[in-house]
Parts: sequence; structure tokens; C-alpha cells
Amino acid sequence: MPKLLLLAAVLVGAFAGAARAGAEPKIAHFTLWNGLEVVVVPDHRAPVVTHMIWYKVGAADEAPGKSGLAHFLEHLMFKGTAKNPGDTFSQQVAAIGGQENAFTSSDYTGFFQRVPRDHLKEMMALEADRITGLVLTDEVVRPELNVVLEEQNTRVANNPNGRLAEQMDAALYLNHPYGRPAIGWRHEIETLTRDDALAFYRRFYTPNNAVVVIAGDVTPEEIKADAEATYGKIAPRAEIAPRRRPAEPMQEGPRTVTLADARVEQPSISRVYLAPSSTTAKPGESEALEVLAHALGSGESGRLYRALVVDQGIAINAGANYSGTALDYARFGVFSSPKSGRTLHEVEAAIDAVLADVIEHGITAQELESAKSRLIADAVYAQDNQATLAQWYGSALATGQTVEMVEAWPAAIRAVTADAVRMAARTWLDRRTSVTGYLVNSLKPEEKHS
Amino acid sequence: MPKLLLLAAVLVGAFAGAARAGAEPKIAHFTLWNGLEVVVVPDHRAPVVTHMIWYKVGAADEAPGKSGLAHFLEHLMFKGTAKNPGDTFSQQVAAIGGQENAFTSSDYTGFFQRVPRDHLKEMMALEADRITGLVLTDEVVRPELNVVLEEQNTRVANNPNGRLAEQMDAALYLNHPYGRPAIGWRHEIETLTRDDALAFYRRFYTPNNAVVVIAGDVTPEEIKADAEATYGKIAPRAEIAPRRRPAEPMQEGPRTVTLADARVEQPSISRVYLAPSSTTAKPGESEALEVLAHALGSGESGRLYRALVVDQGIAINAGANYSGTALDYARFGVFSSPKSGRTLHEVEAAIDAVLADVIEHGITAQELESAKSRLIADAVYAQDNQATLAQWYGSALATGQTVEMVEAWPAAIRAVTADAVRMAARTWLDRRTSVTGYLVNSLKPEEKHS
Repeated sequence: MPKLLLLAAVLVGAFAGAARAGAEPKIAHFTLWNGLEVVVVPDHRAPVVTHMIWYKVGAADEAPGKSGLAHFLEHLMFKGTAKNPGDTFSQQVAAIGGQENAFTSSDYTGFFQRVPRDHLKEMMALEADRITGLVLTDEVVRPELNVVLEEQNTRVANNPNGRLAEQMDAALYLNHPYGRPAIGWRHEIETLTRDDALAFYRRFYTPNNAVVVIAGDVTPEEIKADAEATYGKIAPRAEIAPRRRPAEPMQEGPRTVTLADARVEQPSISRVYLAPSSTTAKPGESEALEVLAHALGSGESGRLYRALVVDQGIAINAGANYSGTALDYARFGVFSSPKSGRTLHEVEAAIDAVLADVIEHGITAQELESAKSRLIADAVYAQDNQATLAQWYGSALATGQTVEMVEAWPAAIRAVTADAVRMAARTWLDRRTSVTGYLVNSLKPEEKHS
Repeated sequence: MPKLLLLAAVLVGAFAGAARAGAEPKIAHFTLWNGLEVVVVPDHRAPVVTHMIWYKVGAADEAPGKSGLAHFLEHLMFKGTAKNPGDTFSQQVAAIGGQENAFTSSDYTGFFQRVPRDHLKEMMALEADRITGLVLTDEVVRPELNVVLEEQNTRVANNPNGRLAEQMDAALYLNHPYGRPAIGWRHEIETLTRDDALAFYRRFYTPNNAVVVIAGDVTPEEIKADAEATYGKIAPRAEIAPRRRPAEPMQEGPRTVTLADARVEQPSISRVYLAPSSTTAKPGESEALEVLAHALGSGESGRLYRALVVDQGIAINAGANYSGTALDYARFGVFSSPKSGRTLHEVEAAIDAVLADVIEHGITAQELESAKSRLIADAVYAQDNQATLAQWYGSALATGQTVEMVEAWPAAIRAVTADAVRMAARTWLDRRTSVTGYLVNSLKPEEKHS
């Protein structure tokens, strides 16, 4: 059973330039009696359907000391129910030639299948059963913990980039649980138990805390009937409190983290600034940050690449990114890797000069138009991918956005002005709320052990 | 009502070179039926007595989002009970010419009075009444919140050193609640309510979670009788769970924090390393760190001062410190301020060279003997101060130590070897588990806004 852990940044990163729709399909959105939200995205190009359930719970909802629990439970959700024991569900998906997967971020946990259209109702019945019917025994829980630990090894412990990203997040968030890795701290994952998983499951897995997104060759009417016949049979089993996480205090000073690993062949610098998310930003602000990230650093036409790689020839790459899909904070990032013979500090100074210029003078009219066109075009192209569309709506609804906000996104991008971009740069590219990470092969001798 | 917030570091810092007894008075230690521990430290030089109660709860026991609650409750404990309303308690202390105060750390909350011996039982009765009898109305809670916010202003918000220390702790602890300031994050203090305070009070203020320490012109026998007649009347009202806080993950890389404040006239550098506390250290390890801190940096004879100030003439001060009194982690610190015309980086390189030398070669036999003699002498002198002695036992018992461990401390210091000191330096002066703080007047132009 392959399972994906999509950390918030990864998932959203894939989206940033991908999934904002222009010419919208006619989306339907309704709520069942039990509180389950359903979003239907008709797409009649092929007789296939993408079926997703998004629980509004993620790693940032875990109790202190229990990090990794949301992701561990995601894995355990494949262990069967009383009605569909063992891997019945996965076997049925495989038998009909379908695909399935699952993912956990700081804000949500999701499961999906992509199957022939005729098998959708079957998937809905199986997924509905799994909302409350999970059966866990120690025999399945223990080995799965090892699977999760192995995943942590691959993604973080044995991955210098993963290790640095983990330590940078911990330094970026002084108080908010986004500072904990979505996969969990290894020493805490090791202590997770069946009881922990079941308590978390009973508290957060309930129809009134979930969103089902169905994209494909369907109509809202038939989905409504099928949803009532399947999901509609599941009673809510927990009240869901408002999702309020501890907020960040005033961040007072620039931070750095240096990670040395003998496997690093190419040093790099990356910096993340605390930024508002689509959900927390003032109107237009998140869109201005998207445009700014594209103008600064999307590919080889971005300012950072042109300045550091093309003009100055001191770096082998350079870019920027912004990921707005989050319930609370988002991050604005810049990065670069020096050319052989150049230092991280030279590259950092060059990045700082580019950023200072954008803060002072903003971006050009041409950069503005180009970034906006590209973002909107990407959103249109994204409609070609059923799963991407479904994921776009699901992640938005699981992080406090609405269907209307998703639909209005291309217009909001079109409305971004050069002034708004300069203001966003001036407001949010503030070193005091940033962490700069240095990935190096080894610490300087005096840094190593003193 | 003056009240002291002693952050763990401050309290323990005052102790590091102060309160380890050599020629012990005959200490008595017993537990009442209700779980209250009592420690009696006879001291017959004057007809006065120091009476302290230590609750085994501090800022690190607060729920996420409620930082500052332990300290806020400390303030509110002076608001009166049903039996002794308003400031009856404080007025009685004042009327007999006594002194009183209170303090909150990450691990404990304490209250004390120093009064003429004949009034001790009266203090015990008043303090016993206050364990469970507190009455809080909105009329007293609201104004006290402003007092606490004003205290936060003075200690942190308007104090560059305080701001840097706060942000460094948040960067030092990636997961453990010691990363939260003991006084609380300002934005969270602002939201604390009467209900929060009462819930915390009912959960943690109970005889079975407290230690009473009485030092002065008393005998264990009379204290036992008086304790039973006063504290013995209070029934336990809550069960106390083991104090397990989320532990630190592997810390992978050196971190820095830079704090710029226009009021800074003298830049400085400070570095804290995560270290074991007296409670978590292997036998002898915490004592070796004490010796190391003294050899490196206690006053003008320490290595750092001699190297940076005397020999190289690049700094106006330099030192080291270690504070072992904590339930979980402790910190080993080094610091210096450059002479005018010298940079923080020059000073940092000089510190690193001193530390590298100690890691490589350890300290000399003469440094070892001198540090040990001074530590033991300080402990003997500390017995001159009744309140210091009481505080020593109280803080130890509130952080997982025993009376026997306190009494054995001078012998443990005597037993420290040069090898143990070198090993402690090699193990714990590891940059990967450290944060270096730079206090400066202003960020470099490119750091300011990019």
C-alpha cells in the first residue's frame, strides 16, 4: 500500500503554479444532514472519476508530545473495518484498475481513489464505512509504526534537505504548531500507540469534520443521491471545536540555521519569511504575494535567476516560492546554490540586493503582466487534470476557504496591481520574521565542536 | 504588593555560585498525610524564620496558547480567600515587620515570608488557607492582568536583552515548552481570564503538589506539630500526573538570532547550549559542567575573560554560566561584549578558540582545584543566608531532586576530575545544539528589510 505524505509545503508548492481555474466547470456544493460537505466538479471528458475525502485535521491539531499522530492514523486507515476487514478496500480498488493514495499536511488528512465512473458509488460506500468503522489491533499497528519510521528515515533523517527544512520550520515558528514536522518528531513517532490513534480517530473523524470532493463524469444530482445513500448513513460522532492554534508572538530578529552533512555536494541557501495565507491575508494580499513570487523566482525568467545565474554568474540556480494554502500562516521562500568557487554569503548578499530593489521599486509593468498571465494560464491548464482540480477544491475547503473564493481566484489575480506587489514585498519580506538556512558539507572547524 | 518573577535562569543563576552547603545543618524532611512535603532547616543564629511554599507547577506546565498563566496565578494568589479576604495576609506580614515575595519559573511557583519566629505558625495557617481557599472576582483579575502586562513591558518588551533572551529560548527549544517565556507571550497573556486562572489553580494547587520549606530558629519537632495543625487540615483536591513535557528532537544545526534595538549602546554576543540539568544528567556530569563554567568564565580569573579582555584586549567582558536546577533541560552559556572598534565576529571567533582549546585539552589542574574550591566555598558562605538555603532546598525538591542530593552536592563537586570536565565540554559544547544571539544597535541595511 503506497502512501504519500504530502507536507503542506509540498502539496501547495505543486499547486502554486498549477491549479487556479479560469473557465470554470459548474461546481456544485452541498452539505448532508450529518454535516458532511460535498463538492462536485463535473468533467465529462472521460468515463473516470476522482473521489476524495478531506478531514479537517492535520499535524497542527495534534497534542504536544504526540507529533506524527495525524500521519500515523492516515496509514492506519488502510487496516480495515468491521464491515470491510483487512485490505478489502484497497483490493477492490486494484481489482477495478483504480488508483488510490492518501496524504497528511499540517491542516488536513485526505484519501482518494481514481476509478472508472461505474464504480464510484462503491468507493463512496467503502469510504463512508471507514469514517467510523476502523478496527485496529496491535498486530497491524506495530508493524505500521515501523513503516512510518522508515518513511521518516527516507524523507528526513537520511535527507539533508529534509533535515534542514525540519529544523528551519522549528526555528521559524516560535509558538505555532506549524513548527512541528507534519510527519512528526522521530522520538515522538516512536511512542505512538493504538490507543493514541483511536482517540484521535474518534475525536476528529466524523462526517461533520469532512469534505468529499468528486471530480469526473458525474452530475450533481446523481452524486447527491449516492452521497445520501452512502455517506448519509453515518451519524456524526463528535462535536468539532473551532480550530484555534497558538499564534506567533512578535518575531523580533532574523534567525539562521546551519546544517552540515557529509553527503551535501552542492551547498545552498534558503530563506523563509512568515507570510499570511490565503485564509488569513487581507483581500488581495495573498494574490500579490503569488505574483511577487512568480516575478522574483519562477523559473529562468525570474529576477533572482536572471541576477544571480545569468548576469552575475555566481549561482547555478535561484528562485522564490509562496504557498498560500494554509489555515494559519504561510511561507514566502527564496533560495539559491552558489557556483563552484562562490560562497553562500556572496549569494546571500546578491539575493538581498534583488529583494531590496523590489522592496524599493517594486516590479515592472511587464513583470506584473507576465506573472499574472502565467498564473492564470497555469490555472486554466490545471483543469486538464481532474485530480488536480479536486485537490484544489479540497485543500481550499479544508483550510478555511470557500468554493466561491476558489472560483474568484483568477479574477483576484487579474486585479493585482504593481503597488500591491510592492506593498506586499515591503510588508512581508522583513528579515525579523525570517529564518535563513545554510546547507553545507561541513561546519567550519571552529563551528564543529564549540 | 511587590512580586518577583524569577525566570528559571535568573533564579538559578543567582544560585550557581551561591548555595551549595558544605557543613550541613541537620535537615529534617517529612510528608504529611495529605502529601505535602515539609523540609526544616534549623538555623538558630537569630529569632527569625523563612517560610516558603513551592508548588511543583510552572510555565512549562501551561497548555499551549495559555502561556503566562502560572505567573498570572502567582499574582492572583495575593487577592485573598474566603477566610482571609483581600490583602489580609499581606497586611499581617507588614504589621509584624515581615517581608514577603513570590516567584514563578518554568518548573515551579513559590511564595515566601520572612518573619519573627513567633509569627511562623500564623504564616503557616495563612499559607495553608491559600492552597485551596482563593477567591477571584473579575474586579481583581482585570487590573492584575494590567500589572502583569506592565511587568512584561519592563522585563521584555522594553528591554533589548530581555527580548533577545526570549527569542533565543524560542530558537533553542524546538519542541519543549521551555521555549515559551515563563512570563508568557504577550499576545497570550492578554487573553488570560479568571476562569483560566481558577482552572489552573484547582488542577495544580493542592497539598500533594507542594513543598513547604522552613529555615530558621525552629526545631523539626515543633514544625511537625504546627504543620499538622495548619497544613494538615487541607485535603488533597487533585491527583497529580507525572510531569512529562514534550522532549527535544535531535537538534541538527547551529542557530543564530540577531536582535537590533536602537537603545543598544554596547553590542554583545551570547550563546546558549542545551545541557543536562542536575535532574537529567548522568552522575557527576552536572557538577562537571558547573566546574567547567567556573573555570571558563566566572569573573576576571576565568579563561574567557583572560583571553578576550586581558590578553587580546578585544572585549570589555566575557564569561560563562551554567544553571543546573531544572526538571528537564539546562543551558550552558557563554557571552562577551566587544571593545569599541572590534566586531562581534572577532569576539565570537576568540570565544570559539577558547572553547576549542578546552574541548581539546581540558582545563589545568590549577583551574580545576580553583573552580572546585570556589564552588564549595560559595556553598558554605551561602549558609549565612537563611533565605538562600531555603530556596536551595525548595528549588531542588520542586525540580525532581532530593534532600540527599542537595546534601551530597559538595562531595560531588570535590569528586569532579579534569577528565570529567573535558568530557563534559566535548559532549555538551556542541554547536549543533546551540543558539548564538547577537544584540546590535541596528541591522545592516540589507538585513533591515529584505
